[in-house]
Amino acid sequence: MQAWRDLGPEGVRIAGVCDLDEGRARTMAEEFGARAFTDPAAMLAALRPDFVDIATTPPSHRALVELCAPQVRLVICQKPIADTPNDARAMVDACDRAGAAFVIHENFRWQRPFVRMQELLLAGAIGMPRFLRLNFRHGWDVYAGQPYLATVPRLAIMDIGVHLFDLVRLFLGEARAITCETQKRNPRVEGEDAFTALTAHDGAVGVTDASFHSTLRPEPFPQTLAVLEGDRGTLELREGYRLVIHDETGRREEDVEPPVPAWGEKPWHVVQDSVLAFQRHVVAVLRGQATPQPSGADNLRTLALCLAAYRSAEIGARVSP
Amino acid sequence: MQAWRDLGPEGVRIAGVCDLDEGRARTMAEEFGARAFTDPAAMLAALRPDFVDIATTPPSHRALVELCAPQVRLVICQKPIADTPNDARAMVDACDRAGAAFVIHENFRWQRPFVRMQELLLAGAIGMPRFLRLNFRHGWDVYAGQPYLATVPRLAIMDIGVHLFDLVRLFLGEARAITCETQKRNPRVEGEDAFTALTAHDGAVGVTDASFHSTLRPEPFPQTLAVLEGDRGTLELREGYRLVIHDETGRREEDVEPPVPAWGEKPWHVVQDSVLAFQRHVVAVLRGQATPQPSGADNLRTLALCLAAYRSAEIGARVSP
Repeated sequence: MQAWRDLGPEGVRIAGVCDLDEGRARTMAEEFGARAFTDPAAMLAALRPDFVDIATTPPSHRALVELCAPQVRLVICQKPIADTPNDARAMVDACDRAGAAFVIHENFRWQRPFVRMQELLLAGAIGMPRFLRLNFRHGWDVYAGQPYLATVPRLAIMDIGVHLFDLVRLFLGEARAITCETQKRNPRVEGEDAFTALTAHDGAVGVTDASFHSTLRPEPFPQTLAVLEGDRGTLELREGYRLVIHDETGRREEDVEPPVPAWGEKPWHVVQDSVLAFQRHVVAVLRGQATPQPSGADNLRTLALCLAAYRSAEIGARVSP
Repeated sequence: MQAWRDLGPEGVRIAGVCDLDEGRARTMAEEFGARAFTDPAAMLAALRPDFVDIATTPPSHRALVELCAPQVRLVICQKPIADTPNDARAMVDACDRAGAAFVIHENFRWQRPFVRMQELLLAGAIGMPRFLRLNFRHGWDVYAGQPYLATVPRLAIMDIGVHLFDLVRLFLGEARAITCETQKRNPRVEGEDAFTALTAHDGAVGVTDASFHSTLRPEPFPQTLAVLEGDRGTLELREGYRLVIHDETGRREEDVEPPVPAWGEKPWHVVQDSVLAFQRHVVAVLRGQATPQPSGADNLRTLALCLAAYRSAEIGARVSP
């Protein structure tokens, strides 16, 4: 919400806020100078918005997207897009039929370090990518703010894997196969709170691992660390937002730490800044200056990779997404 | 040879040198004050040594071990123990029948950083191990000194994987399953020059990756990097032999760089120092003060893991070793 407000000078206005909890809807609406609703259909009819930003939990995504698509020019849907490929496909189809752009709120690829890594890769700084390692390991108490996370049967892959797999696909292309080992490390937690996935791509291999039960000091949450090796060089994203660039000529380091938005705070700034970058991108899509990154259609494959990771772990096999 | 000479004060004497190339045997024998042979049976008959150190290539290991076992108290055999499980098993049996101790020259677990990590793990510094990442990535021209490496059909797993898998088993116990993706990155090289392996253990997961075609500055060869996570802390072995110890109380760093032996030089010192440590261990085994680390019998499982890695990559499946 704060990021949308920051985009006011670029033509964005928050017209309405809809929440099943009337009190919350009203508080938010007042804070952001918008009208409050508890019924999304009523909001659409009253405001005729250019776009909607759906930030609910996955089970409600499909009905909301199908409701909104015919009445707006663009739909943003929070990740993970859906719990099943069937629902996700229906949402993509609904937007296609309505001619509405469909963008998934996938902010990791909009995090400053990864934007910079993409830029360097596309500029040929390391040659063809051959190997990617992504790590998201921490011991932050994510359950304090979101207690339901301790009870969901599917945790780390659906919560974080979905972001990381989007990055894997962005850097290495589609995965032909995936093998995933899941772990339940924290006895207080129901679902898998750690996973390690190995993916095979054309000409490249990826390793993606995450853990919510690691002891690291200083606490690295919510940083993702990465190594991307190409034929002629390597990009290493280290703790503290230090990007090390290795090539034939030597080694140099860039500080890729994002700024802290006025309404933000550390250590969340990497996420907060990426939300701003993502939302600015959405404005560009609305103006016809960019295509969705990532689109709902693209995100179907990320969801397929997540579900394949669960299948792999469950049956103990290397599987095709 | 230099390391054995260093152990002179501890009672070791190099009595004989055997090489099919008579000139080389003679040169080495002269340098180390020993007798030269071209026939191993003749050497055994003439010298009646306490132990032999077999440092030939794998195809000759079995015949030499079977020849020596009945005539010595201890046999050292260079890794990889053999090309097939059948040969390896026969060698273990030959030593068992003869009552000779059988030690595999596996020096990675004797490298100072890993000795220190074992020590910390056994002292309970990080709790039960849950996750291990081992990386051996470099761009060193290993083919200059050993041109045959460019032509062998099985390269990185047999050359380096065998060391790394020994460490994986040492830290996490036996692997119940392995999935391995191999890569041929350097077009001048016949075999796989990169691999990434995912292993599942009781309560733990391992990722092992190696590449001979990485661009990293400064060149990290021959350093192995590692992350070992336990329930209560993490050991991180970083470039430059810096061991970072994370636990509830914070973070501290140890310098675990080994000294350079008088006859050694950087960057080989980590290997050279480990050979000395390994050979000192062999003396302890001969004196009845230690059991072989690793024994031939133990090493059968490391070989099985290597062969399972190849099988996994070939058939594209998660397999049991």
